[in-house]
Amino acid sequence: MFESAEQGHRLSNAAFTRAEPGLRTALLEAQYAVLDQSRFPVIVVIGGVDGGGKGETVNLLTAWMDPRHIHAHAFGRASHEELVHPPMWRFWRTLPRRGKTAIYFDSWYTGPVLDHALASTGNRRFQRSIEKIFRFEQMLANEGALVIKFWLHLSKKAQEDRLRTLERDPLTRWRVTDTDWRHHRHYKALRATSERVLQATSTPFAPWFVIEGADANYRHLMATRLLLQAMQKRLSNSAAPRAARGSTPRVRNTDDESPFAALNLEQSLARGRYRGELAKQQGMLNLLSRSSRFRKRGVVAVFEGPDAAGKGGAIRRITAALDARFYQVAPISVPDPEELAHPYLWRFWRHIPRLGRFAIFDRSWYGRVLVERVEGHASASDWGRAYGEINDFEQELTDGGLIVVKFWLAISKQEQLARFRARQKTPYKQFKITRDDWRNREKWDAYQAAAEDMVARTSTATAPWTLVEANDKHFARIKVLKNLCEQIEAAL
Amino acid sequence: MFESAEQGHRLSNAAFTRAEPGLRTALLEAQYAVLDQSRFPVIVVIGGVDGGGKGETVNLLTAWMDPRHIHAHAFGRASHEELVHPPMWRFWRTLPRRGKTAIYFDSWYTGPVLDHALASTGNRRFQRSIEKIFRFEQMLANEGALVIKFWLHLSKKAQEDRLRTLERDPLTRWRVTDTDWRHHRHYKALRATSERVLQATSTPFAPWFVIEGADANYRHLMATRLLLQAMQKRLSNSAAPRAARGSTPRVRNTDDESPFAALNLEQSLARGRYRGELAKQQGMLNLLSRSSRFRKRGVVAVFEGPDAAGKGGAIRRITAALDARFYQVAPISVPDPEELAHPYLWRFWRHIPRLGRFAIFDRSWYGRVLVERVEGHASASDWGRAYGEINDFEQELTDGGLIVVKFWLAISKQEQLARFRARQKTPYKQFKITRDDWRNREKWDAYQAAAEDMVARTSTATAPWTLVEANDKHFARIKVLKNLCEQIEAAL
Repeated sequence: MFESAEQGHRLSNAAFTRAEPGLRTALLEAQYAVLDQSRFPVIVVIGGVDGGGKGETVNLLTAWMDPRHIHAHAFGRASHEELVHPPMWRFWRTLPRRGKTAIYFDSWYTGPVLDHALASTGNRRFQRSIEKIFRFEQMLANEGALVIKFWLHLSKKAQEDRLRTLERDPLTRWRVTDTDWRHHRHYKALRATSERVLQATSTPFAPWFVIEGADANYRHLMATRLLLQAMQKRLSNSAAPRAARGSTPRVRNTDDESPFAALNLEQSLARGRYRGELAKQQGMLNLLSRSSRFRKRGVVAVFEGPDAAGKGGAIRRITAALDARFYQVAPISVPDPEELAHPYLWRFWRHIPRLGRFAIFDRSWYGRVLVERVEGHASASDWGRAYGEINDFEQELTDGGLIVVKFWLAISKQEQLARFRARQKTPYKQFKITRDDWRNREKWDAYQAAAEDMVARTSTATAPWTLVEANDKHFARIKVLKNLCEQIEAAL
Repeated sequence: MFESAEQGHRLSNAAFTRAEPGLRTALLEAQYAVLDQSRFPVIVVIGGVDGGGKGETVNLLTAWMDPRHIHAHAFGRASHEELVHPPMWRFWRTLPRRGKTAIYFDSWYTGPVLDHALASTGNRRFQRSIEKIFRFEQMLANEGALVIKFWLHLSKKAQEDRLRTLERDPLTRWRVTDTDWRHHRHYKALRATSERVLQATSTPFAPWFVIEGADANYRHLMATRLLLQAMQKRLSNSAAPRAARGSTPRVRNTDDESPFAALNLEQSLARGRYRGELAKQQGMLNLLSRSSRFRKRGVVAVFEGPDAAGKGGAIRRITAALDARFYQVAPISVPDPEELAHPYLWRFWRHIPRLGRFAIFDRSWYGRVLVERVEGHASASDWGRAYGEINDFEQELTDGGLIVVKFWLAISKQEQLARFRARQKTPYKQFKITRDDWRNREKWDAYQAAAEDMVARTSTATAPWTLVEANDKHFARIKVLKNLCEQIEAAL
């Protein structure tokens, strides 16, 4: 696929100068239109061979467009902060909000391509990386992003010429690094790997464009024109192209045994035994959190369940056992405007802990397949694809060393009513019970059905759901603590 | 000052239980009122001796108040990411927005107190830390924050009793760490240091309250009551208490020799020499940025100057010489809502680079003493105190290893007019010239006066201003590059 970019395309200075004013003006206009609409972010990935002009192209784009609304990201070797987070963390935290443009210089492609071509990562792992990238970009597109990818290509000969030319001039010699020559020596392997990646990841929703990089005029004209066309096309379509995802929302088979039906919600624990167990489990949890092996792991704990199921109380029994420096509790409610302007999972990535720490989510990303599904805040296609995206997300976390622990606190409808009434009688608990809670209660069955689907479709080997019988708060808290300790112990 | 907190204050369970409902309800109401008004953030610092109940008190506050709007921060040993930033960075990035509450568990006091008492930091350095803290809190108060500080105290005997009691029970033994006993052995030194710090930093705008920590009921009642009173008092005052800062806006003495008057703006550089110099200086800058000594430093470069002075062009000549992974350009314009809801300097701290990197500000924190002063967006007392706060801020950066480089690009009024006109004729440059630019131009003299004050009052030994004659773009760009290289070289 690279042959078309080895033809020696050139563009004269005169032709470039003629094209420049119109192109710059149109590009700026498109940028402002994207900003005004604030309907979608623009994500530009720039890959290619060393000497292919990646840096120059990025500089051109940021110089031609309004620099306040376009941001270039380059990463290089992972910083310590990045090393103690899952690999995709660095990219998630820099995703642009709707209306803005981000250029990725190094991107999610850099690591897999170099590892496979130079360090000979096994084929299976490489294949898995490509599939992850495919699904990541699919998710971006489904979340509305305009994704466009440029590959700046040079033939081996052209690359050598380019590096030699730069080296010959004492004033530009510094631009050529050892890495450039090392990659040049591995040109063939890099080319083969790149070709495979590009073929597997050039999709209608995130296409690759291969551009011959030797001549700056030609390269600049092509890159800016293609970006402009993509922006204009998207601006004129009211809907984003859907990157459909095979699976459609499953209608639950009512013959399936509900995992919830088997729960005996009435299990309880007497006060005396509770006290002893609580101190014992908290001590155990504390020891685990201080163990040297835990420093290379970490916990992401999720709490879901009906209103008044006792999530907050269970969480406080965990945090009481932890050093305050080692955990953060993230209470999830309505997203703020900044969060709404980003892909759905962005707001949760913000709270993903570094290795050795705990993040405890009081409600979570499962909101999309619970409240948003039931209340109709998300379309069926959006919550339908969320199951797979959530599984990918949690896989990313566990691949990064984190232990993902998920608790569904189950209470009966009657128990909820009793707790609502008790809260209303206590002035300082009234804030916990709102009209929304009563309204949600009317949809009890719909929420239960959504919860059953959720457990069925997102209980994975690496991140299983634990159902907790929670009509008795003591019983529930101890079960949570015990289970948390067991899961950490099993993982260490 | 600790004697009053060694009296053995106690509160019975019955009395606590009687007080609890009223207190919790009032605290929640105050929290919601603070949130509704969103006029000020609440900053609670919790210090005190080990075993004094800091953790329990934080847990109580987060349990009693709505956890979505209160956040506890504990830091412990600096992470790698924190180590490669100035010490105050970790605190700045966690400052709460208006309406929200943050509890600082470890705080800006922890390091200085422990260093002085245990590691015997010299007196001078200790004194300087205290002064920095004083001014930091003064700035917070002036920016509208409600700052309240609790010191949970125990006598040496009470501390020992507390640690022993916890250790005796196998279920709570884990709560006592080696650090606790080490601090106990140094009780006297810690007490003396703490006393000195508290005396020096208990101010009307950020008062300390010493609370006896031995009895949980008493401690909880005192802490919540004091916080409640402080919130209520502040809610009923429409204005924040001013923590005046000695200096008032100086009226410029017109007899002063203006540093601007001496500039020969007409200096220029012919195209041929420019090209050679540009490549040479860029090569030099690139080498410096790759040097091993630079990894422990870093650059914060500020560009200010009238509209159309050539800031963007000068910046692009710098970035063209740098590896894209090593720099970020921060174009500063109107603050977003999140930035407006934080203390003024917060939005700039967000862009402060880690060691070994460049951050280049196209306009900067000097906006407060330039555009905000001239246009009346900031009150005289606000821009008046900004000079000192900015000097403190830049001192913090240089103390942290960063090289702060500041350029004022000076052009004549006629040159600006010529550039405005040229921009209006070029379609893709029209976006750079707005009605605001023409309006600002009418206030040319006021902007010049503000700039002269700025240079006079913020040119410090560690972060001096460089005035750049910029009527000729070539001359200006080379002067900037050369000066930047020289300042880096001098610092390495």
